[in-house]
Amino acid sequence: MSLHDALEWRYAAKRMNGQKVPLHKINAILRAAQYAPTSMGLQPFTIFVIENKELREQIKPLAYNQPQVTESSHLLVFAAWTDLTGVHVDEYIDEIVATRGVSVESLDAFKKAMMGFVNNQTAEAKIQWAANQTYIAFSFALAEAALQQVDATPMEGFNIAAIDDLLQLKEKGLTSVTLLPLGYRDEENDMFVKMKKVRRAKEKLFIHL
Amino acid sequence: MSLHDALEWRYAAKRMNGQKVPLHKINAILRAAQYAPTSMGLQPFTIFVIENKELREQIKPLAYNQPQVTESSHLLVFAAWTDLTGVHVDEYIDEIVATRGVSVESLDAFKKAMMGFVNNQTAEAKIQWAANQTYIAFSFALAEAALQQVDATPMEGFNIAAIDDLLQLKEKGLTSVTLLPLGYRDEENDMFVKMKKVRRAKEKLFIHL
Repeated sequence: MSLHDALEWRYAAKRMNGQKVPLHKINAILRAAQYAPTSMGLQPFTIFVIENKELREQIKPLAYNQPQVTESSHLLVFAAWTDLTGVHVDEYIDEIVATRGVSVESLDAFKKAMMGFVNNQTAEAKIQWAANQTYIAFSFALAEAALQQVDATPMEGFNIAAIDDLLQLKEKGLTSVTLLPLGYRDEENDMFVKMKKVRRAKEKLFIHL
Repeated sequence: MSLHDALEWRYAAKRMNGQKVPLHKINAILRAAQYAPTSMGLQPFTIFVIENKELREQIKPLAYNQPQVTESSHLLVFAAWTDLTGVHVDEYIDEIVATRGVSVESLDAFKKAMMGFVNNQTAEAKIQWAANQTYIAFSFALAEAALQQVDATPMEGFNIAAIDDLLQLKEKGLTSVTLLPLGYRDEENDMFVKMKKVRRAKEKLFIHL
């Protein structure tokens, strides 16, 4: 299936039917998030894959009681790093060396550029930067879910502080950015299943220069 | 080609060869951005499609002289709305009515929720919200570019104020968020062409609960 057709097929399911998404599809969706490009390649996020129903029951009231949180089979929580430091940069440099077989010295200029970013940006700017990268991974997961014919409902409206508390994200140097329940649409109970997609016209959305 | 294979194939090309991307591929990439899901469906962004070489020459120094700005054949500039108002909400409601053939009254609760967002959020929060939605569209364009075997280099590092001035974005209620040159990798001059992809291991990136 082309992404074109997959994006026609997908919609933000408001109700899901509880059917379990097979592991190979979950893995394909996670892999797309893993392969998403990020600023300098740092991937400043952690993705929680929550299958535990009790935990999803606890999250549901923190996300306006949206039924997909528990009617899905897996809930992804995308969390951005809040504590980017030189340690992260060093770990990343080590990974580049191990993967590409290049010398540490050959990465000096790149490391210096990253350390400049780490040291010169405000804490708020770094969290925003990390959240932006998280959005890219989140979007790639969304696109792959559509290709896998798995329903996925992007969620930004939830109690960030409460979910951070519940998952002990602060202690882990993380903060929640988006939620993504994965499951299957409930054709009988979701009035949005058959509705036409509404999108701004090309003439309004694009300006050609 | 699967997205899996496309993401293996793609990389952030540092040099491009000037070859022109055919229109049908540009249109497929733009369509993916158009079909990206957004918060409440509002699509609070405008995408500039810049083929004009002179204009790209003017943009290049504002983006750290990265050669892909002019070695690509098209430069996409993703710009977020800075001025979300009730007018946007009304236009959107009109589009839903026209597309789905529902009554305006049936959308009252939805409109009220959107107006609550418009009226209760700070200007800064609304711009950040719009920028987040822009990232989703940007990411969908990136994914489709890979599927079309078109090279695309995500760029966040550029002089936002200068590009906003050049494209007169402020007057249009917009601010630039990301750049995306579209073209073809220069196999001879880009040392990154043959390098292995570096990604954090699954065990570090994902936490299963």
